[in-house]
Amino acid sequence: MLQTFTVTGMTCGHCEKAVTQAVLGVDPQAQITIDRAANQVTVESAQARKEIADAIAEEGYAVAA
Amino acid sequence: MLQTFTVTGMTCGHCEKAVTQAVLGVDPQAQITIDRAANQVTVESAQARKEIADAIAEEGYAVAA
Repeated sequence: MLQTFTVTGMTCGHCEKAVTQAVLGVDPQAQITIDRAANQVTVESAQARKEIADAIAEEGYAVAA
Repeated sequence: MLQTFTVTGMTCGHCEKAVTQAVLGVDPQAQITIDRAANQVTVESAQARKEIADAIAEEGYAVAA
């Protein structure tokens, strides 16, 4: 299931990697695409949306609903 | 010996960590202080200035002379 999140606070490639690792932490099979300029994180995953959002937020980024 | 570098491109805490690790890579005993807002990296190290600057540059940051 394709899930899109608006994530603010990603400033560089390290941030993209941190978000990617956070998502993989809740679903190792997830496919993640990040458009940093658009603050958009797209995740192909069967994992619950809230778990993914929480994992990203735990890295210190703001996740819009 | 206290060495100061002007480093641009550090946008977040991950960047500070990347720069710190790069410096420790050339001198594991180095003491590093980063003032990101001022683009300033201060390194207490006996290592040659050029080696430290090169290590930071290799992480993708611009180091002023």
